[in-house]
Amino acid sequence: MKKLFVVGLGPGSADTMTAQARAALAESDVLCGYTVYTDLVAPLYPDKPVLTTPMRKEIDRCRMALERAAGGETVAMVCSGDAGVYGMACLIYQLAAEYPPVDIVIVPGVTAALSGAAVLGAPLSHDFCVISLSDLLTPWELIEKRLKAAAEADFCVALYNPASHKRADYLQKACDILLMAKKPETVCGWVRNIGREGQKSKLMTLAELRNEQLDMFCTVFIGNEKTQNLGGKMVTPRGYEAKL
Amino acid sequence: MKKLFVVGLGPGSADTMTAQARAALAESDVLCGYTVYTDLVAPLYPDKPVLTTPMRKEIDRCRMALERAAGGETVAMVCSGDAGVYGMACLIYQLAAEYPPVDIVIVPGVTAALSGAAVLGAPLSHDFCVISLSDLLTPWELIEKRLKAAAEADFCVALYNPASHKRADYLQKACDILLMAKKPETVCGWVRNIGREGQKSKLMTLAELRNEQLDMFCTVFIGNEKTQNLGGKMVTPRGYEAKL
Repeated sequence: MKKLFVVGLGPGSADTMTAQARAALAESDVLCGYTVYTDLVAPLYPDKPVLTTPMRKEIDRCRMALERAAGGETVAMVCSGDAGVYGMACLIYQLAAEYPPVDIVIVPGVTAALSGAAVLGAPLSHDFCVISLSDLLTPWELIEKRLKAAAEADFCVALYNPASHKRADYLQKACDILLMAKKPETVCGWVRNIGREGQKSKLMTLAELRNEQLDMFCTVFIGNEKTQNLGGKMVTPRGYEAKL
Repeated sequence: MKKLFVVGLGPGSADTMTAQARAALAESDVLCGYTVYTDLVAPLYPDKPVLTTPMRKEIDRCRMALERAAGGETVAMVCSGDAGVYGMACLIYQLAAEYPPVDIVIVPGVTAALSGAAVLGAPLSHDFCVISLSDLLTPWELIEKRLKAAAEADFCVALYNPASHKRADYLQKACDILLMAKKPETVCGWVRNIGREGQKSKLMTLAELRNEQLDMFCTVFIGNEKTQNLGGKMVTPRGYEAKL
């Protein structure tokens, strides 16, 4: 039985991939994925054929990968960040039953909550939530409910897909919900193009975050009530300071 | 100025480290950390001195690393999983002000929520929370509040430190809170010794999870209301099925 790897690439450069991810790509006969992600790894394996589908064609993309694997090839479906966190692993499992048996192997990777956190300092050192603000596949009411719950229980939060052309005011709406339970001076930050060319980051308060103009290449971090700005780094204490 | 790397090792084997983590260890003059974690990497660098402190001596461990770095050595403080998620990055930043300036570089790694998820299938493919059940540094009331919020807003949940000798009934208590808002048949799973020798995993319902006897080497996964057991894999749909 041939293998279908679902590979989390991390932020995208070769040095942020795990050895396991590199080995899965090397072992594969064909690389498959969204163009932006296959472009990150195709240069490392110039002889391997690359199959791509445009954005929002995720179902076609997964069917393509399953068909090739069922046909006898070892296939790597590549995902930015982790293979599971808003990645293709779930859809591959959901569609797999329609194809002859394929050995599916999930290779985890460093998701943006972790790689972005490392740029800002240590914002997620205590309990945290990961929430996507994209309402393409999730009702906005459920996103609002989760934001409200995260704020009321004083979680740190990593926000994925904070804005896009069609959703220019979603971050503002999210901040308004968070501000119902979190203080305006809560330490926040964002990172754009994590680990890629043109990486940028900024710290600010939650009140200020509300007015930031971000896009889909940004990941946003919201602190809990103990999160501090320590010399330009966003640091959420784990609680050891009680022992200092 | 010499460097202090805080390095997330991932689950621990060399193939689950990023190239960036390997490079940071290779560049360092000395490796520092909790014995269990330094034991994972010391064999890869047999010529490098290793500084360790026992469990719960995190403050001493970080001071040791900062002292050596301030003294002119390049130091790697190693952490299991990610450097930030319940790792040493926050404490290094908190203590750094007491020492001469040191260039602190956080190297992210694959935390157990991601590596464990890959073993079970794709349990965290929608919004999720990461919560530690250890009340050594966090009041139990706050942990309860976060569990309640996570359940009411139908988050997927990854639980770290689900139990220990002194906290034998904490997982049971956590499940009782989750069961106030999540259905007893919610798909759950756990993974023990992720990516290490003797790795084990199991799927079950939330009602069954309540009676599992786990330890601190386990990471627990609780699904949302749409999470399925697909042929023995725990899969949380991202929402594409609406388009199928």
